[in-house]
Amino acid sequence: MSAISIGLLGFGTVGKGVYETISKHQGRLQAIFGREVKVSAILVKNVSKHSLPDGEVLLTDNFQEIIELPKLDVVIDAIVGREPGYTYLRQAISRGCHVITANKEMFAFHGRELARLAKHNNVSLGFEATVGGGIPIIQTIKQLLNANKIERIEGILNGTSNFILTSMREENLTFEEALKIAQEKGYAEADPKNDIEGYDAFYKAVVLSELVFGKSPSQETSVREGITGITIEQIRVAASLGLKFKHVASIQKEQETISCTVKPVLTGEAHPLYRVEGVQNAVSIDADIVGNISLQGPGAGMFPTASAIVEDLIHIGKADFPAVFEEGKSEETVLEQPVWVILGDADQAELPEGFETISKVSKDAFIVKASFEAVSLLAPDLKAYQVLGYYAPAAEENKQVQPV
Amino acid sequence: MSAISIGLLGFGTVGKGVYETISKHQGRLQAIFGREVKVSAILVKNVSKHSLPDGEVLLTDNFQEIIELPKLDVVIDAIVGREPGYTYLRQAISRGCHVITANKEMFAFHGRELARLAKHNNVSLGFEATVGGGIPIIQTIKQLLNANKIERIEGILNGTSNFILTSMREENLTFEEALKIAQEKGYAEADPKNDIEGYDAFYKAVVLSELVFGKSPSQETSVREGITGITIEQIRVAASLGLKFKHVASIQKEQETISCTVKPVLTGEAHPLYRVEGVQNAVSIDADIVGNISLQGPGAGMFPTASAIVEDLIHIGKADFPAVFEEGKSEETVLEQPVWVILGDADQAELPEGFETISKVSKDAFIVKASFEAVSLLAPDLKAYQVLGYYAPAAEENKQVQPV
Ligand SMILES: NC(=O)c1ccc[n+]([C@@H]2O[C@H](COP(=O)([O-])OP(=O)(O)OC[C@H]3O[C@@H](n4cnc5c(N)ncnc54)[C@H](OP(=O)(O)O)[C@@H]3O)[C@@H](O)[C@H]2O)c1
Ligand SMILES: NC(=O)c1ccc[n+]([C@@H]2O[C@H](COP(=O)([O-])OP(=O)(O)OC[C@H]3O[C@@H](n4cnc5c(N)ncnc54)[C@H](OP(=O)(O)O)[C@@H]3O)[C@@H](O)[C@H]2O)c1
Repeated sequence: MSAISIGLLGFGTVGKGVYETISKHQGRLQAIFGREVKVSAILVKNVSKHSLPDGEVLLTDNFQEIIELPKLDVVIDAIVGREPGYTYLRQAISRGCHVITANKEMFAFHGRELARLAKHNNVSLGFEATVGGGIPIIQTIKQLLNANKIERIEGILNGTSNFILTSMREENLTFEEALKIAQEKGYAEADPKNDIEGYDAFYKAVVLSELVFGKSPSQETSVREGITGITIEQIRVAASLGLKFKHVASIQKEQETISCTVKPVLTGEAHPLYRVEGVQNAVSIDADIVGNISLQGPGAGMFPTASAIVEDLIHIGKADFPAVFEEGKSEETVLEQPVWVILGDADQAELPEGFETISKVSKDAFIVKASFEAVSLLAPDLKAYQVLGYYAPAAEENKQVQPV
Repeated sequence: MSAISIGLLGFGTVGKGVYETISKHQGRLQAIFGREVKVSAILVKNVSKHSLPDGEVLLTDNFQEIIELPKLDVVIDAIVGREPGYTYLRQAISRGCHVITANKEMFAFHGRELARLAKHNNVSLGFEATVGGGIPIIQTIKQLLNANKIERIEGILNGTSNFILTSMREENLTFEEALKIAQEKGYAEADPKNDIEGYDAFYKAVVLSELVFGKSPSQETSVREGITGITIEQIRVAASLGLKFKHVASIQKEQETISCTVKPVLTGEAHPLYRVEGVQNAVSIDADIVGNISLQGPGAGMFPTASAIVEDLIHIGKADFPAVFEEGKSEETVLEQPVWVILGDADQAELPEGFETISKVSKDAFIVKASFEAVSLLAPDLKAYQVLGYYAPAAEENKQVQPV
């Protein structure tokens, strides 16, 4: 059988991630599709900037060369901006190609029209990557919507602004200082407006609104407000109340009106978004039968986003998936020695061999590293509990031992 | 077209939830299936205990009467124990019925054989409700597995034991006191062994192991340990280290061996399960391409569990679902007046009409209730931030205003 032929638009962070994932996990894909899955052509703006490992792949700045390929099954949109993405995907759908997009700005504006066209042409339209990067938000919402009516969604949909707010609070930085670090780490663009003014989160909220309620939010009742006004003093006052600033997108329906707001709000400890820190994204979904469900994970980045796109790819033409892959050998996992808190009279305690003491915390608690076997040999008056999420700080920093 | 005919096994918490959900949301189901969805018969142990609103439904203690119904499309298992559930579902599959189960103990032991039979008979087998109640864990894992290899799952899979640990820590209770409250609230059975000794969580972990790795955990490397040994003193020592006890199930593969452990562990602040409190369940999934994703929600209860079962029901015979329901009128949502923190020189501040002051916290912070409109009329030197997850404590308790 001939290979599944993919046209990839864009070869930046997302495009490269998709290309590498498809090459690296060719075995899995072939097991699922029963044939090779191949990127046949890549579209970029500036061909001379790029070089490709595989000489057989067409690299071009001319979309016509791609859309006119003799065989083209799927077009993946990983470029930026409303145009030319929309025009290209319309051409692809008209030709009968399945399409997948990561381009939220384009999809927020033209998603409904593309969905109509795709349905009319009997091709699939994947957009998992447009919201929440690698978190399967779209799929989960579709699944919930089978039985439930969704009443409200609240989400931290932009990792850059969440990173800035987190750094300001944790490291006691000004907005400008935190933004600079975000730029140095590659989380924020040179022009950060899209993220810090809430445009990016708003596009994603529009995609969710269309998915959940079948229409876009009303202009009158919607708000898009950035985080540039938040000061470190305000963050301190909020902290004294046990509250944290979060840049939250919320989408809800009242009567027939959909409202979408993206703005800085204060969250309390029991709110599902309170604990979401750094570049993480999360959504909290209120549904009528099931109640509240929340999902958290990496909201952007090369491989998380590629994972979402490849999941969409696999949906194509497949009604049902094998739950488990039949694959070759699995890689061996090297496990770190686990960390334990030992409770009991530590002063008297004789720790058997194989224990590495990290710190003695009090007269009845030690923190140690030890194998499961060593722990099983402890005296019965000592209780050992494994610690998950433990981070041993670098010795020279001489900080207090801190769990993270 | 004739109705879809369902045989419901069990009419306890879950069975009643399913029955009510199917009745109440008949409109949605008909929109999806294009025909009526009807519970034709209900199996119980003790017929005289029950009365049914709908006289047309057969209520029986004899499964043969159900399996011999002239029309039977789906059998839903909401009874307890390995048998007779297994035998009944085998009979149902052999007759060509689709089957759905919430019965984790049965499914942990016989899931693989039922999957084989279902495949052979070309019927669906739904088991979303066996793990994590209303949280779509099974579906999310299936989805992730399309593109990813899952390396490890950690979860709080039993709400009762998590409720006990949370109450001990938050209310300073002994294990026995916390257990008694759990029983009074209906979270724990009269015989709580299944929950507090980790059997229930272990069954769920076995289901996840089969789903993710295609086999059951190895007896030698697996551990099931309860929380009965945890004392309030230990919880205090852990708290002084910034750690919380959680009863965690973890499933992981090393070389060809699957290990599953259910035991009390200590979690640090950055661990995805640290913040999961009360009867909530959650899973944290590590996958090779996407990284870490976590899901949280109600792990049990009448309607969350029913929601999972109805989602499985809708999967049956449907390859693709409409993302959005075309439904009649939506119910009107009555929104509570939002809560705000007002920052600025509060002493000098003149709050316009329509503000209800909840508390004045410091010289530059108020907590108030006010409409969006009222807030928009504030003087420009005052900044108002909406508070999500706020709980105003009862006045007579005279506690500090506390966000929850
Ligand atoms: N980065 C993420 O983590 C992430 C996550 C989810 C969704 N997304 C979305 O995915 C899309 C791609 O993001 P990215 O981060 O990969 O962007 P990027 O790194 O800036 O890469 C964009 C790529 O698209 C090409 N391109 C841009 N405009 C083009 C045009 N008019 N014609 C042809 N090629 C064009 C560029 O070509 P040159 O290389 O020649 O300049 C480049 O290869 C965006 O819509 C973004 O919103 C990104
Ligand atoms: N409760 C939850 O939140 C939850 C969540 C997820 C999964 N589950 C699972 O769902 C199943 C049902 O749980 P539940 O809480 O609904 O239990 P429940 O309230 O105790 O109800 C059990 C029902 O099954 C019937 N039954 C029990 N054994 C039977 C037998 N041998 N033959 C015929 N009928 C029998 C009982 O009949 P009588 O009424 O006549 O006694 C009762 O109606 C269990 O497997 C449980 O593990 C429960």
